[in-house]
Amino acid sequence: MPYTAPVSQIAATLQRIARLDELGATGAFPNFDAELVGPILDEANKLARDVLAPLNPIGHKHGARLTDGGVIAAPGFADAYRQFRDGGWMGLSFPEEYGGQGLPKVLALAVMEMVHGANMAFGLCPLLSFGTIEAILAHGTVEQKQMYLPKLISGEWTGAMNLTEPQAGSDVGALKTKAVPNGDGSYSITGQKIFITWGDHDMTENVVQLVLARLPDAPSGSRGISLFVAPKFLVNADGSLGARNAVRCIGLEHKMGIHASPTCVMEYAGAKGWLVGEPNRGLVAMFTMMNSARLNVGLEGVAVGEAALQAAVAYAGDRKQGSAPGVEGSAAIIRHPDIQRSLAGMAAAVQAARAICYACGSAADLAEHSADAAVREAAKLREDLLTPLAKAWSTDRAIDVTNTGVQVHGGMGFMAETAAAQFYLDARITPIYEGTNGIQAIDLVGRKLSMNNGAAMSALLSDIRATAREARATNELKFVTIADRLDGAAGALEEATAWMTATMKAARETALSGATSYLRLAGDTAGGWYLTRAALEARGNPDAAQTLALARFFADDTLSRAPGSVASIVSAAESLRDEGAALWSAS
Amino acid sequence: MPYTAPVSQIAATLQRIARLDELGATGAFPNFDAELVGPILDEANKLARDVLAPLNPIGHKHGARLTDGGVIAAPGFADAYRQFRDGGWMGLSFPEEYGGQGLPKVLALAVMEMVHGANMAFGLCPLLSFGTIEAILAHGTVEQKQMYLPKLISGEWTGAMNLTEPQAGSDVGALKTKAVPNGDGSYSITGQKIFITWGDHDMTENVVQLVLARLPDAPSGSRGISLFVAPKFLVNADGSLGARNAVRCIGLEHKMGIHASPTCVMEYAGAKGWLVGEPNRGLVAMFTMMNSARLNVGLEGVAVGEAALQAAVAYAGDRKQGSAPGVEGSAAIIRHPDIQRSLAGMAAAVQAARAICYACGSAADLAEHSADAAVREAAKLREDLLTPLAKAWSTDRAIDVTNTGVQVHGGMGFMAETAAAQFYLDARITPIYEGTNGIQAIDLVGRKLSMNNGAAMSALLSDIRATAREARATNELKFVTIADRLDGAAGALEEATAWMTATMKAARETALSGATSYLRLAGDTAGGWYLTRAALEARGNPDAAQTLALARFFADDTLSRAPGSVASIVSAAESLRDEGAALWSAS
Repeated sequence: MPYTAPVSQIAATLQRIARLDELGATGAFPNFDAELVGPILDEANKLARDVLAPLNPIGHKHGARLTDGGVIAAPGFADAYRQFRDGGWMGLSFPEEYGGQGLPKVLALAVMEMVHGANMAFGLCPLLSFGTIEAILAHGTVEQKQMYLPKLISGEWTGAMNLTEPQAGSDVGALKTKAVPNGDGSYSITGQKIFITWGDHDMTENVVQLVLARLPDAPSGSRGISLFVAPKFLVNADGSLGARNAVRCIGLEHKMGIHASPTCVMEYAGAKGWLVGEPNRGLVAMFTMMNSARLNVGLEGVAVGEAALQAAVAYAGDRKQGSAPGVEGSAAIIRHPDIQRSLAGMAAAVQAARAICYACGSAADLAEHSADAAVREAAKLREDLLTPLAKAWSTDRAIDVTNTGVQVHGGMGFMAETAAAQFYLDARITPIYEGTNGIQAIDLVGRKLSMNNGAAMSALLSDIRATAREARATNELKFVTIADRLDGAAGALEEATAWMTATMKAARETALSGATSYLRLAGDTAGGWYLTRAALEARGNPDAAQTLALARFFADDTLSRAPGSVASIVSAAESLRDEGAALWSAS
Repeated sequence: MPYTAPVSQIAATLQRIARLDELGATGAFPNFDAELVGPILDEANKLARDVLAPLNPIGHKHGARLTDGGVIAAPGFADAYRQFRDGGWMGLSFPEEYGGQGLPKVLALAVMEMVHGANMAFGLCPLLSFGTIEAILAHGTVEQKQMYLPKLISGEWTGAMNLTEPQAGSDVGALKTKAVPNGDGSYSITGQKIFITWGDHDMTENVVQLVLARLPDAPSGSRGISLFVAPKFLVNADGSLGARNAVRCIGLEHKMGIHASPTCVMEYAGAKGWLVGEPNRGLVAMFTMMNSARLNVGLEGVAVGEAALQAAVAYAGDRKQGSAPGVEGSAAIIRHPDIQRSLAGMAAAVQAARAICYACGSAADLAEHSADAAVREAAKLREDLLTPLAKAWSTDRAIDVTNTGVQVHGGMGFMAETAAAQFYLDARITPIYEGTNGIQAIDLVGRKLSMNNGAAMSALLSDIRATAREARATNELKFVTIADRLDGAAGALEEATAWMTATMKAARETALSGATSYLRLAGDTAGGWYLTRAALEARGNPDAAQTLALARFFADDTLSRAPGSVASIVSAAESLRDEGAALWSAS
């Protein structure tokens, strides 16, 4: 069974968690019309289901390939990209001034979930364009905006982010690529970049490279890097394409998954580029790209998890093994309790991760567009806090979910050509790129907890407590049980946060030793909170029972473990500091 | 850095957990000499490190291939197998009567850990021979034993287990392969088997197939299957090879991992075979093979986890990114607390899984060989209880551990040719084959908890409590803390066991809904117990601090979560039963 977007769940999440109505009410989106959401999602589903999903196994099998003339996308991808572009999907959330449709970002996020769910390797191409557009929007000159944005927003060109070098991965400040002024306002860029996703391809006539490099005499480390734009083909004053720039893909990585997404080694041999933003302030511009990309990678986790869930449900419904009460003859394995437990766990995790990502996207929209400064500030804090959770928690769950998806398939799941296997392999990159999940955990405890003296986490906890009260006030047994679980988790998160905040000051390495398990607790709690919110909002609607079922199962299965995790977060971090290398040095 | 067997940790586990001294004292192993253990392990390490490990990436890249003449093993594998055979490694634990060395099984298990750690795809070939030998030893006729055992035990031939058919995986009773008597004591076997590991190859001149088939007029289901032996080449009375039998490999699966282990589609076109054991009692014989294979698959989980740990420690020591206190310039990532936490978690999980597997193997030896009937009975209960834990808990940890290993490697971990990636891909089969881990959980709660009215789990819990008392009695702070954690976990396991036992009778489907999470709790608790036992035994030895460190970290990190997991096991199972398909049907 091919992927079909879960349109009604996505629409419900947009409404109940992303609160599209509030975004509409800001007045910042004059084109926004709640009536259009349904048709937009339906159209996007057609593209995802009918065009992109059938190409997914083809891309997995054939991959992209490098020729003397550059990278050739997997079979069918160029045509699919043309349909994506012609549908105007790239510009959904970008300013009308540059040809976009000026709709909320979170709506574009919903569309991208469908694209990634159908074909994650394909989805990476627009994902990189998003980051490129946002960086130029935020930091580009008027001229740069005029030159690049209309073509990027129409999808006529795509963008790529050139950050990593062999010695500079998580530590981007260690990069060595040089940019030397040519005297005419342009720079000559020389160096090698690796792991450049969709750094080259034949789906569009130009690729706009954003590249981090070091100016002559720049300070060392991350305060000495600058951002440049260097298109594959130089752009003439009239917008037509000029000479081929001296940047090319000289190698493709051979990866575990996302075979159709070309991961390029890019060589800059005196490529012509122009500074984007201030000299030596490339890190700021990089974070503009990165924050967008982090949320979008979290969303990939949701999307590939959803695809794995659908495949597992379909397989479990078809595959017959053993007997089950009330079934004559051989029963479909979906009748077996252990398989059901697997599917329920997958479904709850995917929906919780979806809610976290959409809430993060919605907060980003509000932070940018609300007319009320206090709302903007609160939304910014929420966005900042949720970004590492969206990225790391969602992608960790994607590993779990796609792993369980393989397991539901039994021996078939281990076959390389099975869809379940592809999801497992594709998903594996998501905890790694755009800042490993360890980096996200450090970001959470190192930056996000200390913003405004802890205001972001305090506000989240206070919202969670309010939802628990609201659930309790229904006086319905299921909601009251959920309220207990949610309060328990909030208490645990409060306690762990207090320890983490104090320990970050008193014994930073001890705190960092617990960062990943703290992030897990925070994500579990936030996920359970959003599922509860959705269940409360769903009351009286046709999907009320189902929405409540997910909240209840997640509360029983996952939130119930939260209080017991605090001791682990604290004491395992402490014993790690005490014992150190004795723990792993035997090997 | 290539794999090197952790000889001292393996030796310590043999001594402290498998209690080789007690096995020696049974008198059942006249060839056993404690002094020989060290040299045996050192020799096995040489084979693993110098011969098998260098072939592992080659096997991953090239795989086995099918030609008109049959399956050709990956480059170098036939020569490596010759060295394995010539070293006498196959016969270590088998009876001298058939050319074996009559040593404890658990010693062969230790050797096999090294083989799997160096090259899991290779190790699967002897793994299947083990099962074949044990089934023939237990159920074969005198003639069959004479004909097959010396050649299998010397390694001159290998064995394969032919169980699965397309419609008969976990539900082996659904198999359709037919065996029709020829009138001369032999049978004519017709049908197709899939997923047959090392079902054919060119490393030995013969392959002994054990194959499940159905006699004419056999009862339907699992009570109507019989076991047959059908060699690739028929064996003449003088032991020489005769005609080619009508069984051949007609296809190889294209898998996610273990590429060098040929996974065959075997066609039986009237192949000549002979009944092993009683007609229609094939299931009993199958379980002889399966129990051996289950423990060995658990051991694969340990082995590939150990290999992943070594690779991660080596990479983290080499790779420089970012700064660390006290390090000038760029620091190796092993200096970062979050990476340390990853390595510590890997090391503790691997050592706990090793202990569970070795304890299971040792219990099997005692159950077979102790002179004391009460000891045999208690050991048999322990073996039966530990088998599903050894298989499922160890292989679930292998997924976690190899996943973390990939993560420690960052972007490099996603590259298909990285060793970390190979371990992750190879490991993925282990929770699937020889009974999926879901089947193991059902076995645990369905069969193992009810044996002798719950005696197996009661005895385990009582042993755990005794160890907690012993740890407490040391009056040393670390041990006392561990004792608290261990008591907490034992209490949780007791409570969950009481619920599970009662619910298996009252509401079987509810109980089965919690089986997998119950198995997790049981494995965590048993693993923590063995680490504590090892730490107590290690006191006064040079590795005392390290052994205690692992026990402490595992207690703080994992055992501390056990009390909080009981509510999850119980209530998530109940909410799953209540909510059912509402949980996953939206997709």
